[in-house]
Amino acid sequence: MDIKQTMENVGQAARAASRETARASTAAKNAALLAMARAIRDGRGALLAANAEDVAEAKANGLDAAMIDRLMLTAQGVESMAQGLEQVAALPDPVGEISDMKRRPSGIQVGKMRVPLGVVGIIYEARPNVTADAAALCLKSGNAAILRGGKEAIRSNQAIAACVRSGLKAAGLPEAAVQVIATTDRAAVGELVAMPQYVDVIVPRGGKGLIERISKEARVPVIKHLDGNCHVYVDAAADADKAMRIVENAKTQRLGTCNTAESLLIARPVAAALLPKLAAMLAGKGIEIRGCAETQQLVPGAKPASEEDYYTEYLAAIISVKVVADVGEAIEHINRYSSAHTEAIVTEDYTNAIRFLREVDSSSVMVNASTRFADGFEYGLGAEIGISTDKFHARGPVGLEGLTSQKWIVLGNGEVRS
Amino acid sequence: MDIKQTMENVGQAARAASRETARASTAAKNAALLAMARAIRDGRGALLAANAEDVAEAKANGLDAAMIDRLMLTAQGVESMAQGLEQVAALPDPVGEISDMKRRPSGIQVGKMRVPLGVVGIIYEARPNVTADAAALCLKSGNAAILRGGKEAIRSNQAIAACVRSGLKAAGLPEAAVQVIATTDRAAVGELVAMPQYVDVIVPRGGKGLIERISKEARVPVIKHLDGNCHVYVDAAADADKAMRIVENAKTQRLGTCNTAESLLIARPVAAALLPKLAAMLAGKGIEIRGCAETQQLVPGAKPASEEDYYTEYLAAIISVKVVADVGEAIEHINRYSSAHTEAIVTEDYTNAIRFLREVDSSSVMVNASTRFADGFEYGLGAEIGISTDKFHARGPVGLEGLTSQKWIVLGNGEVRS
Repeated sequence: MDIKQTMENVGQAARAASRETARASTAAKNAALLAMARAIRDGRGALLAANAEDVAEAKANGLDAAMIDRLMLTAQGVESMAQGLEQVAALPDPVGEISDMKRRPSGIQVGKMRVPLGVVGIIYEARPNVTADAAALCLKSGNAAILRGGKEAIRSNQAIAACVRSGLKAAGLPEAAVQVIATTDRAAVGELVAMPQYVDVIVPRGGKGLIERISKEARVPVIKHLDGNCHVYVDAAADADKAMRIVENAKTQRLGTCNTAESLLIARPVAAALLPKLAAMLAGKGIEIRGCAETQQLVPGAKPASEEDYYTEYLAAIISVKVVADVGEAIEHINRYSSAHTEAIVTEDYTNAIRFLREVDSSSVMVNASTRFADGFEYGLGAEIGISTDKFHARGPVGLEGLTSQKWIVLGNGEVRS
Repeated sequence: MDIKQTMENVGQAARAASRETARASTAAKNAALLAMARAIRDGRGALLAANAEDVAEAKANGLDAAMIDRLMLTAQGVESMAQGLEQVAALPDPVGEISDMKRRPSGIQVGKMRVPLGVVGIIYEARPNVTADAAALCLKSGNAAILRGGKEAIRSNQAIAACVRSGLKAAGLPEAAVQVIATTDRAAVGELVAMPQYVDVIVPRGGKGLIERISKEARVPVIKHLDGNCHVYVDAAADADKAMRIVENAKTQRLGTCNTAESLLIARPVAAALLPKLAAMLAGKGIEIRGCAETQQLVPGAKPASEEDYYTEYLAAIISVKVVADVGEAIEHINRYSSAHTEAIVTEDYTNAIRFLREVDSSSVMVNASTRFADGFEYGLGAEIGISTDKFHARGPVGLEGLTSQKWIVLGNGEVRS
């Protein structure tokens, strides 16, 4: 059977299953999630064996250490996967929630009901735990899922898929509610993103290359997670201690995450007093500083920052620095160079704080807090399927609610329109 | 200058203006809307003259009467346009609204702030009043707008655009906040829908051909309004009077609107008692009945309905009818044949009502009310830019809120992540 027909069959089965997941009771969905967790714990031996084969092949193919690290499952990793499923079971069910009911002059009551999107396609890379996480979030939000992991993890993913299917079956839900693509043919991705009749949204999780390719090819909406070129702006009215603490945490707690700060802006009136201290703290943590002319004057040893630097998500021990006149210039700079992920202002000035919150056009905007908080768990979503840098539909960390939509409902008593 | 460069310039100007409209005060936006209304009233003579030229050319080109009717402005039409602008000025400003603030264990407070989408592109056909309506909704929701009306209305639209610009200027807002494309070159549409760097969403308003073409070519999200193949299902537990009233209103109040019922489903246990009465009422209003075999037995003179009939949005004095076993079969039929616009159940049974609300996958689902209520004004949105039959982002009538998104905001006091 050719790949087009295979994906057509997968799509059709997902669409049919999505009708059942949409109306499934909270109890049935939770029972399935808990049964999946049990199947994963019980199947630990088989999971680890399948994963060991994937890892051996990856090593034989010369994949780099970071990739193998993401691919490898441990007994602890299997337990985390099972716990993740249980955590999603414990989250409130968003489906069917009614809100904003209002009585209209005609007599009808109008409001909204939260409903699943339908079929969610998720495309990811080497990490096998995404298979369990994504299955859980899609099912709990009433959607059917089509999962396509990296070819390196094919055996691990199929082993996890078997546990997922057994959980669905145990709860009386259709096994096609979560399908994990069994072929490693790259053409399957091209088909998956171009079936608007079967797939309602695509969530790509992975590197920039993957996300750009999918955005270009997609014929359905995409929840994109692109770069995190995050900024911390230290305002003239900043509390110096908070500034030190937040810059340190935002830049140095972890270098490789999307919510790590990559650029520091500081207001001119406090630059001479604060920037040398901030720079010394950063240098002490091994961070290279690339700054504007004023930064270079205030920070001996700072390298010059190019235009390109201000656009860059380093994911490395480098930070770009710029001295700006005030909050207005900071906002302008951010709205120009940022990737619209997460930005923070450090200030004790009410008006500057509110203006920054209002005018910075990013998915998360913070006052006196570290950019590292931009995360589904920290925000209380329970879990996240990704962090959207788009504006349409969902922005920032996307949890269960981001996988749903709202329809209008009308409760009447025989009213007609006049 | 070629069309690509022209549209590039329009896009750039819109993006720049959108930064200003996003932070504009409610007072400035309302002042602009009221000044536009004044300019339209004061410019009535010029508007009517420009429109008369458009109408004369349309007649010379042999356009049909319905098209000319949509194109033609009267003194009353000009006054309605001005009042429409004043009504949007009176609506609450959605921009900057903060909601769902919650304190997290880390100490931060997390919530959402409503923000404009950015730049909205609207593509429409002959009706010149859409120019003023769309300008008002986009501006009030903090967006910049690029409007592209039908070539038949080019003089009318440019005359309205002059009033819009003078209103923006009077309120100190950038004139590029609302740009009405001056060229009638069709290539401009192709460019407009393929500039993701400048345009955040496209709203096509018009016939199916226009919307399908735009969906196919778009490189940015589209808020689509496709067919309205709406259903009324008369349940076994229906109140007979409500059923008569609702079917009459839903089908016959206006034949050509998207929220008009095109299909009637009736539960078998009440079909023999109710369907002949419903059919007689419809026949008395000149409606042709096309039904299943059981319908034909119960309604002398009913024509047979083909599979195609059940998919059809007639926009005419025809209704398709089917006798179904129960609410389950009704839901299944609707989810298969409907265009996912609006469906209503007539019932006094609580469980059937709730099940219909939950399981019917359409943008508006109603109990004991006419499908004709699916409308931004009837729902209390104040105005609507369209009715979305999509699931992603906005479903059903789209008002000011549908032209906005929510970003996350975090209020801290120096918290860092541990």
